[in-house]
Amino acid sequence: MVLKKKPVTGMKDIMPREMEIRDYLIGEIKETYRSYGFLSMETPCVEHIENLTSKQGGDNEKLIFKILKRGEKLKLDSAKSEEDLVDGGLRYDLTLPLARYFANHMNDLPSPFKAMQIGSVWRADRPQKGRFRQFTQCDIDILGDDSPLSEIELILATTTMLGKIGFKNFTVCINDRNFLKAMASYSGFKDKDFDQVCIILDKIEKIGEEKVALELQELGYTKENTDTYLSLFAEVTKDVDGIRFLKDKLSGHLDGKVADNLEFVISSVMAAKEADFQIRFDPSMVRGQSYYTGTIFEVLMEDFGGSVAGGGRYDKMIGKFTGQDTPACGFSIGFERIVMILLEQDYQLPTKKESVAYLLDKNLPKEGMLKVLEVAKKERELGKRVLLSAMKKNKKFQKEQLEAEGYGQIVDCYEDTVEKL
Amino acid sequence: MVLKKKPVTGMKDIMPREMEIRDYLIGEIKETYRSYGFLSMETPCVEHIENLTSKQGGDNEKLIFKILKRGEKLKLDSAKSEEDLVDGGLRYDLTLPLARYFANHMNDLPSPFKAMQIGSVWRADRPQKGRFRQFTQCDIDILGDDSPLSEIELILATTTMLGKIGFKNFTVCINDRNFLKAMASYSGFKDKDFDQVCIILDKIEKIGEEKVALELQELGYTKENTDTYLSLFAEVTKDVDGIRFLKDKLSGHLDGKVADNLEFVISSVMAAKEADFQIRFDPSMVRGQSYYTGTIFEVLMEDFGGSVAGGGRYDKMIGKFTGQDTPACGFSIGFERIVMILLEQDYQLPTKKESVAYLLDKNLPKEGMLKVLEVAKKERELGKRVLLSAMKKNKKFQKEQLEAEGYGQIVDCYEDTVEKL
Repeated sequence: MVLKKKPVTGMKDIMPREMEIRDYLIGEIKETYRSYGFLSMETPCVEHIENLTSKQGGDNEKLIFKILKRGEKLKLDSAKSEEDLVDGGLRYDLTLPLARYFANHMNDLPSPFKAMQIGSVWRADRPQKGRFRQFTQCDIDILGDDSPLSEIELILATTTMLGKIGFKNFTVCINDRNFLKAMASYSGFKDKDFDQVCIILDKIEKIGEEKVALELQELGYTKENTDTYLSLFAEVTKDVDGIRFLKDKLSGHLDGKVADNLEFVISSVMAAKEADFQIRFDPSMVRGQSYYTGTIFEVLMEDFGGSVAGGGRYDKMIGKFTGQDTPACGFSIGFERIVMILLEQDYQLPTKKESVAYLLDKNLPKEGMLKVLEVAKKERELGKRVLLSAMKKNKKFQKEQLEAEGYGQIVDCYEDTVEKL
Repeated sequence: MVLKKKPVTGMKDIMPREMEIRDYLIGEIKETYRSYGFLSMETPCVEHIENLTSKQGGDNEKLIFKILKRGEKLKLDSAKSEEDLVDGGLRYDLTLPLARYFANHMNDLPSPFKAMQIGSVWRADRPQKGRFRQFTQCDIDILGDDSPLSEIELILATTTMLGKIGFKNFTVCINDRNFLKAMASYSGFKDKDFDQVCIILDKIEKIGEEKVALELQELGYTKENTDTYLSLFAEVTKDVDGIRFLKDKLSGHLDGKVADNLEFVISSVMAAKEADFQIRFDPSMVRGQSYYTGTIFEVLMEDFGGSVAGGGRYDKMIGKFTGQDTPACGFSIGFERIVMILLEQDYQLPTKKESVAYLLDKNLPKEGMLKVLEVAKKERELGKRVLLSAMKKNKKFQKEQLEAEGYGQIVDCYEDTVEKL
């Protein structure tokens, strides 16, 4: 029988060149985040199906790879629906597992808990170019701290990491969901309409102000409310002055502390930042996930057409596991996106070590082979990468291949030449 | 609704202290194997169910976590058996995926291909202490080389890595399945009985020679064959002399090249080894996996009650995917076992960096906070680990906790003290 050679639909084999970039990136991430006091943690890739389908994950819950019950628990004859057949699923993100982990271990963890996770997640999305059904996420989160120090440290750690791999002149956009709420309230929208209004507003960058107004009115909102709302966005500047303007304008609808905290986050990040970037207040930024409760932020790289990191505050999720709310704030970098950018740039790894290949003639006697092994041992101890390989008939082609793999020095090993090594 | 806090049955959350050890170990492994010219590669965690159940995996095929078909492909009403419901499964090892990967990409890979893989695998084993249903495997393999250079490089790379994390005075046991076959043939067993004889022989360390003889005779093998077989094992010494003895004794049943190659592997490893270990010819070693076709080896650490690494040559597996046999040889370290040993030893990471924690008084004004952020920035740039944390009411307890987490320097930050930082 000849077996299937291709990976399963929508998932990919990773080639050595891409793995070099991924390994390097993970090294930089772990080192940077560790210097900010984040602690590495891990959860199983499989989660309880009940947790995965508890409405924390929005549309991702439709994309779960579900795992069949095993042994006696699987009752195929009496199964009426999918739910009867499965007891687990592959996680679709790292945030829900983090909340479960924290609830399970909070007494054994520091408080606040600064977590760093790098791991695979799975979504049965329709396959499309550059998007895969298994991909790596890379999150940092601070649990148990309601102060803006969380936001400051998350933004500094993430931007420092991006700076280390050579990204510059990018923009951190920041907003607070409470601004969005207060602006809606000020404009006469009701609390219950907030989510729907946000979903339309989220399109403003794509379709423009006029179409947003139209869509809102089509849904039955008054022209007056819509106009007030959109004129607010037109009036506010995308900087600290804009925050102050809204603090005044929205008084009665907004807790002034929201504005003060956001201003403090921006000024602190600007004062203590290491990388080369701007920070911009973006009052119309919504971000998709419904679990965000406060600040939201993302990193835009215009040169690469979009967002390379995103996050925000989600103070209500941990409570779903513990019964008691715990403040939480997280930042996730777009790991796969960054890998693609580095590959497209033909990124040269700064740590590439000296590499030597020894080509062994097929008539090389055993003593000669031992000599090469001894030389290789010494060079490996010095940190060099050393390859031992049989010499092929087409030596010229073999050498070209090895050069392409990064071997700068290639040594022919014949009986009469190895002694001189 | 309160969600489930525990991980799924048989899988575990990994705490920060263990993660430190795991991250460190992975770093050492990757660095060492890279210096031997192994290339990092990765396959998806999900594999085709047809490949996973193709009889390459022995008993592991009974332990597969299977993945439900999705969308229209799932036809619950007409499903007669499990097979109708699933199209994928979580991989139970890294060897089968490697064979598929190589078959899929062989034209884009160097020849021979020296692969390194670190990844999770899943087996729905009965839960028991210290064994989990998700665990990490760590394999190196050389595909496309039939020379003993493969065995030599695999053993040198693995033992060097074990030496780097402080393991010493361990034993590499080595054998060749062709010896086992020739000894059986010499003793009068038939080719078709070889697998069964090996399964019984494999128990010799546990139950002793006499019981092995009994069990073989109970299965209907003659006393004469059994006696000849076991007396061979009694006669042969566990060293290079034993190999030479068998080469003579088994002439006519054994290709002399098998003995010469094994002797060459042993002498080369002894000449070029970096770590402190012995190598022992072990003619009664069988190793479980049925796919091994030639040399087999494992690393024994008597102090820790068993094997910490194992591998061998499997020249027939790749052909299951390509239709054409490719020589292959691999070595896998017991990653989880080594992590447990290091944790039990309370292993001190050699790379622990200087760590400072700043405790921020709740009345610290914003200017003070900015000052601390600037100091932290400079220290992080120097490679220190720096934690900023709100000062708690029970400051004494907080400091004890931070010391336990490895913060050697803890600095109180009040309005009147931060200026002096």
